[in-house]
Amino acid sequence: MQRAAALARRGCPPRAAGPWSRRWSSAPAEAPAVLPVRRGRILTPESMNPQVRAVEYAVRGPIVLKAGEIELELQRGIKKPFTEVIRANIGDAQAMGQQPITFLRQVMALCTYPNLLDSPSFPEDAKKRARRILQACGGNSLGSYSASQGVNCIREDVAAYITRRDGGVPADPDNIYLTTGASDGITTILKILVSGGGKSRTGVMIPIPQYPLYSAVISELGAIQVNYYLDEENCWALNVNELRRAVQEAKDHCDPKVLCIINPGNPTGQVQSRKCIEDVIHFAWEEKLFLLADEVYQDNVYSPDCRFHSFKKVLYEMGPEYSSNVELASFHSTSKGYMGECGYRGGYMEVINLHPEIKGQLVKLLSVRLCPPVSGQAAMDIVVNPPVPGEESFEQFHREKESVLGNLATKAKLTEDLFNEVPGIHCNPLQGAMYAFPRIFIPSKAVEAAQAHKMAPDMFYCMKLLEETGICVVPGSGFGQREGTYHFRMTILPPVEKLKTVLQKVKDFHIKFLEQYA
Amino acid sequence: MQRAAALARRGCPPRAAGPWSRRWSSAPAEAPAVLPVRRGRILTPESMNPQVRAVEYAVRGPIVLKAGEIELELQRGIKKPFTEVIRANIGDAQAMGQQPITFLRQVMALCTYPNLLDSPSFPEDAKKRARRILQACGGNSLGSYSASQGVNCIREDVAAYITRRDGGVPADPDNIYLTTGASDGITTILKILVSGGGKSRTGVMIPIPQYPLYSAVISELGAIQVNYYLDEENCWALNVNELRRAVQEAKDHCDPKVLCIINPGNPTGQVQSRKCIEDVIHFAWEEKLFLLADEVYQDNVYSPDCRFHSFKKVLYEMGPEYSSNVELASFHSTSKGYMGECGYRGGYMEVINLHPEIKGQLVKLLSVRLCPPVSGQAAMDIVVNPPVPGEESFEQFHREKESVLGNLATKAKLTEDLFNEVPGIHCNPLQGAMYAFPRIFIPSKAVEAAQAHKMAPDMFYCMKLLEETGICVVPGSGFGQREGTYHFRMTILPPVEKLKTVLQKVKDFHIKFLEQYA
Repeated sequence: MQRAAALARRGCPPRAAGPWSRRWSSAPAEAPAVLPVRRGRILTPESMNPQVRAVEYAVRGPIVLKAGEIELELQRGIKKPFTEVIRANIGDAQAMGQQPITFLRQVMALCTYPNLLDSPSFPEDAKKRARRILQACGGNSLGSYSASQGVNCIREDVAAYITRRDGGVPADPDNIYLTTGASDGITTILKILVSGGGKSRTGVMIPIPQYPLYSAVISELGAIQVNYYLDEENCWALNVNELRRAVQEAKDHCDPKVLCIINPGNPTGQVQSRKCIEDVIHFAWEEKLFLLADEVYQDNVYSPDCRFHSFKKVLYEMGPEYSSNVELASFHSTSKGYMGECGYRGGYMEVINLHPEIKGQLVKLLSVRLCPPVSGQAAMDIVVNPPVPGEESFEQFHREKESVLGNLATKAKLTEDLFNEVPGIHCNPLQGAMYAFPRIFIPSKAVEAAQAHKMAPDMFYCMKLLEETGICVVPGSGFGQREGTYHFRMTILPPVEKLKTVLQKVKDFHIKFLEQYA
Repeated sequence: MQRAAALARRGCPPRAAGPWSRRWSSAPAEAPAVLPVRRGRILTPESMNPQVRAVEYAVRGPIVLKAGEIELELQRGIKKPFTEVIRANIGDAQAMGQQPITFLRQVMALCTYPNLLDSPSFPEDAKKRARRILQACGGNSLGSYSASQGVNCIREDVAAYITRRDGGVPADPDNIYLTTGASDGITTILKILVSGGGKSRTGVMIPIPQYPLYSAVISELGAIQVNYYLDEENCWALNVNELRRAVQEAKDHCDPKVLCIINPGNPTGQVQSRKCIEDVIHFAWEEKLFLLADEVYQDNVYSPDCRFHSFKKVLYEMGPEYSSNVELASFHSTSKGYMGECGYRGGYMEVINLHPEIKGQLVKLLSVRLCPPVSGQAAMDIVVNPPVPGEESFEQFHREKESVLGNLATKAKLTEDLFNEVPGIHCNPLQGAMYAFPRIFIPSKAVEAAQAHKMAPDMFYCMKLLEETGICVVPGSGFGQREGTYHFRMTILPPVEKLKTVLQKVKDFHIKFLEQYA
């Protein structure tokens, strides 16, 4: 054994495995004498965690992998009917050319490299923000771990923001948890909520169409997915009678305990009315459901006749019977809105009526991963604590913010109008968020062709769209849709002129597709 | 219903709940007519996920919460026998005053606010790194999502670093996954590995003492923890016979499938010999165990007679029988080493011999959380791609790095020596990492006192230490230790002079403690 070790130490691989391994082995007699060069693996698709195997995530699924392959082919000079892949599959604003908000990046740079605090080329209000954040960090550095729940003064700023947003409804920093993007918060609270076995396994109600994070986390946790369908004929509105149908049916096979709402909707873009939110909250109270309100698009409302109402605000205004009973977690993020800072992975969760011991459990669970990225926490702070009138940076900040949101509003209308010109495409108004989710007619011949390729018909459609135009969108089957209906999700993030080209290409493709499979 | 909605819209909480809720309710007749002001919660300690409830994480456990309370009391002017709490519980270098590496922060600032690329006050080599990173980011911005596996050119830099580190043993960027700190990588791979029920539930072998991330994730995943004990009498060395004992016993009640190694050790600080690593790899081959090598302290080796050997390198040098069969995931982080950039949550995982389909499963699972923080990825890039001789920043970088590591080596020796002067404390050499894990003698009278307080004896000891000196350390029971032995983990991160005071205070406390409970 010593000799083998010595050999190896000198970096000499032994010539003969067998005798060497025998010399080597201090193993029991039954140990194999000869080492085969390739034996079966320990971790295989068969032996892996089946709950992880069941996870699906369409937004970065096969269509996106295909888009990557095509980009490589283009780089290798392989000729295509197009010169670039346009990734309209994911809400990644800056990847589509949106410029960062100057003030946000100035504060971030000052926090990153505090020597810049002496630089005359940074505005005082940015320096003020940076100093405040750094003073709250261990060793005045973004490089220290923060508290598991997040930096205290940032949680205070978040609470102040929510209070302003909700017209004075109080928010308690103790109820704020900074997160690694909204996905992390949603995953964490679901992780705590899921329990039971068999018929008493936790059921989680999600909208269909949904953002596939929800179905993915439900699979991973082995919870039961309970679908409620949004009403496409009614601008994707949420109908409480449909919630009631879904929960009643679910009770036969699981314990429905959680109701997830996405408002403004992803992928559907509807903005819920105040009345609808009241009905949902009453339903949650009635059925004893824990409410999850995904409100990451709260700044992305475009229809003049729509307004964002937070579940928290409506809950309080419905009176103490609700505000002291309904358990609610709501989520926000640095990734969407007007800032589109996806890469920093910043976000927060606010919890209402959470059991005190559960708060402790939550902090314990969060502490295992130590803390959310402190740079993402800093980005979140600037989102909730932006320049105010009178401050040096206010005008530029305001101009940049309004320009992004104004552009998105223009593109939302443009997209709706252009899609609705196309025979066989129907698109509901994009009231908010940053996606179109048009319904597409797929002829039966195309459905058969798709089946022949063992593909969902809308996957088949989107693959052909990608291969023929370079435009990457996500099939509706990745979000869920009523049986026999087909959709795709496309972001409205490309710059206006580029978006017009994209829409024209989709139109031409669709008409050609209808002819081809008539 | 309309009226109630209208009322609520005007923000008027209804006076009488009962009749109002009846008017309100579109619920079936059996809905309660009166809303009680406080009813039972949905999410309670009883109803929550029992696997999450079972999670423990001592490094941020009760002792740290207590430390926080004491800090608040000090701020409120409450008199204590000390003026500040010294947090020696967690490896958070910059919180203890360690300065960030200038070059790293310069590159980060340039990536954050690219206008600075025109500033003469930043060195060219930093600008070169920043441009390279930004060119690989969508829209040339840290604000875009990266690929789920991480930014391509950063994975290439990691692979090049590993190849250099391992004396030419090749590393493939395709096997590199950038992570949100090492904890994220370890959690992700374990998540995929754990399966089966009853006696075939996956067993995960971990060292005792361990870093509590492992026990926490094992609880959360409902896997079976299989303990193997490090040999305290032999400088916390890993003994393969102990691995053999542990795996044989485990086979009666689970399916041991994973072997976790921490080298250099946390909390124990031992650095494994080349021979030991060879034995462990052979054992893993023999027993068909998936190897997890936690190597986040690879730059933190202090004993002149110790050297860090990566599992990857040894695996390759043991010959094709091993290098083509043993499945290995190894982990690194931006949080430790000489940079101590904990807040950025950067890290990477390298996988060897992973089943091709599992790679796909891994990317799918990672894609659900979209991407690791891109700022953390950038920090990781600078760690693996630092200035080289001849580059403008090399001298300063080298000076800063050596100063941090030299200091840590001094403090490691200082801590070992001073602890071993204290009667009733024995401390093994701190060969690496950044912690002392001394064994403490606790008199039986103190053990009884602890039991009276329903505390583990070393928790009782650490609580008293905190209350009497303000020094926050973590009891050995949080890491695991042999029955009847007691320890605590203390970081060696305070500046030298402060560390001397800390050690003197611990010494005085311990002597007093022994007298008090003699």
